[in-house]
Amino acid sequence: MIKRRRARKVKIGNVEIGGDAPVSIQSMTKTDTKAVDSTLNEIRKLKRAGCEIVRVAVKDDDALEAFKRIVSRSEMPIVADIHFNPKLALGSIDAGASAIRLNPGNIKSRQDIEVIIRRAKDRRIPIRIGVNSGSLSVKNGTVAESMAKGVSDYIKIFEKSGFQDIIISLKSSDVSETIEAYRKMAGSCDYPFHLGITAAGPYLSAAVKSSIGIGTLLQEGIGDTIRVSMTGDPLAEVEIAKEILSSLKLRSFGPEIISCPTCGRCEIDLAEIVEGVRERLKEMKKVSLPLKVAIMGCVVNGPGEAQEADIGIAGGKDSAALFKKGKKIKNLKQEEVIDVLIAEIKAF
Amino acid sequence: MIKRRRARKVKIGNVEIGGDAPVSIQSMTKTDTKAVDSTLNEIRKLKRAGCEIVRVAVKDDDALEAFKRIVSRSEMPIVADIHFNPKLALGSIDAGASAIRLNPGNIKSRQDIEVIIRRAKDRRIPIRIGVNSGSLSVKNGTVAESMAKGVSDYIKIFEKSGFQDIIISLKSSDVSETIEAYRKMAGSCDYPFHLGITAAGPYLSAAVKSSIGIGTLLQEGIGDTIRVSMTGDPLAEVEIAKEILSSLKLRSFGPEIISCPTCGRCEIDLAEIVEGVRERLKEMKKVSLPLKVAIMGCVVNGPGEAQEADIGIAGGKDSAALFKKGKKIKNLKQEEVIDVLIAEIKAF
Repeated sequence: MIKRRRARKVKIGNVEIGGDAPVSIQSMTKTDTKAVDSTLNEIRKLKRAGCEIVRVAVKDDDALEAFKRIVSRSEMPIVADIHFNPKLALGSIDAGASAIRLNPGNIKSRQDIEVIIRRAKDRRIPIRIGVNSGSLSVKNGTVAESMAKGVSDYIKIFEKSGFQDIIISLKSSDVSETIEAYRKMAGSCDYPFHLGITAAGPYLSAAVKSSIGIGTLLQEGIGDTIRVSMTGDPLAEVEIAKEILSSLKLRSFGPEIISCPTCGRCEIDLAEIVEGVRERLKEMKKVSLPLKVAIMGCVVNGPGEAQEADIGIAGGKDSAALFKKGKKIKNLKQEEVIDVLIAEIKAF
Repeated sequence: MIKRRRARKVKIGNVEIGGDAPVSIQSMTKTDTKAVDSTLNEIRKLKRAGCEIVRVAVKDDDALEAFKRIVSRSEMPIVADIHFNPKLALGSIDAGASAIRLNPGNIKSRQDIEVIIRRAKDRRIPIRIGVNSGSLSVKNGTVAESMAKGVSDYIKIFEKSGFQDIIISLKSSDVSETIEAYRKMAGSCDYPFHLGITAAGPYLSAAVKSSIGIGTLLQEGIGDTIRVSMTGDPLAEVEIAKEILSSLKLRSFGPEIISCPTCGRCEIDLAEIVEGVRERLKEMKKVSLPLKVAIMGCVVNGPGEAQEADIGIAGGKDSAALFKKGKKIKNLKQEEVIDVLIAEIKAF
């Protein structure tokens, strides 16, 4: 069991972040914000996939106009992503954003920041202080030290204004730098953390870097909401985020499949069975029951894993033994394995 | 920089494991071992993909006959994977295996083990003691404790026979249990470790679980050779393993792509550029130069990341600024970006 760092609780719309709230999943729209309908469509798809908070870039006045319409029609809390221009922060708050994100690297005037803080306070929404290694304004020491220093200095302005509805992120494109930055920050404040590796690249690279970076910190109890940054379809970001959280048993998103890599011992088409079960389980993703399904190729680890699982099979020659709650129930022919497994999972 | 646990050095064929040797990549053939040509074909493909040690299941006398022919024609060191039957261990050693793997859960007779040890000593090959949570014989305490206990008891037999050419693995299908088991073992011996999460499931699940499990341990300096267990194509196991090692800067397998997830700010088709560059870089995978290429969508983190990288672009409106070694060189049209990046990478 992971003992989580005790962070102050903050709310983005109806989603609690910090305290004892479950680690939430975020993503960001990749459509042109001005295209209101496609942006709303992406938000709907993200929500269906399991995303809980979505960020939308507000980069100019036209985007701000569109943002107002998006916010009024969105079913998910929206964070306005602001860089360079403090007026867009104020406009986004007025438009009904559930939170805004400021980048200490490009919104630096103390006066501007104080005006934004007052407006956020009036509207009772939190502000994410999100620093990225790629937009650091000053570098002192290591990248991790510079990011932590940048955030700490920024926080002081907020605290002097009596504003503590803060979420913090310190993202580098380097996994180790990112981990180091969050660790440094974790000891020095109780604000909740948004975790992520920035610019983590395409699918596999993003999955691996985010798993190591976010996974390492979550195991240490650090992190309250996560975002996987991936070049490509944002739905995949959500899928990877769910895998990270369920791998660490922090959350459950339907049945977990334990399946062996297969080897020269395997006499059953295991990859096909796993693919078939996985496809048909997709409709059951909303089951939050932490059901464990073991699909194993042979007698070496098969019976053992199948016994540990709620439901399991251990492959034989073009056949498989079915296990339920640790007991062997019967033998199945290869062609009936998928149907029987799905039926057993549904019956659970 | 990761400070690695100092492990005794062991050799599997020409590949050093432990000591100051780089963390090596393993996989396992999934063909029927009796199908000599397809098994050799899979080994060749694995080698081309970057696999350095391959394991082959020897499950019966027919497989052993085939194994002899496979070993004699393989270009990669082969580890014979043995369960249940000690005679197959002896046969595999005689056949010229570069190492064998024994499972303490199913080869238990002290006398049998001692005969195998003597034979391995004569042939000067190491033995991997590979315990899996799914084939634990006795469970005392947590799964991690049971695995560590099982291995420790087994090691005693080896040490009494004066045999220390040992590699250890303690794999559970649960990420946290696996990490706990290796940590326990790391303090109590100096044998090199083979890391992996067993039965990690299909592609994404295997990538995420292996990244968190193997990645966490590697960051602590634990681990000398790794295997990603994935239901599906073994070449993907190697691809994921490489990503894990390069994410932690433990090894380099050609240029690293840093690319942003894109958002409503991006006015260039970044995903297409990343995909194009990635495709054309595949032929350059053998470049071990740790070159960093940043492909970024806009001016927020783009110039910063591009400046940190060896070569980089920061997207503009259907265009991009090219950076080299931190300096902006020129502006490019969207359609020339891929060609220019590839040319610049090749020129490096």
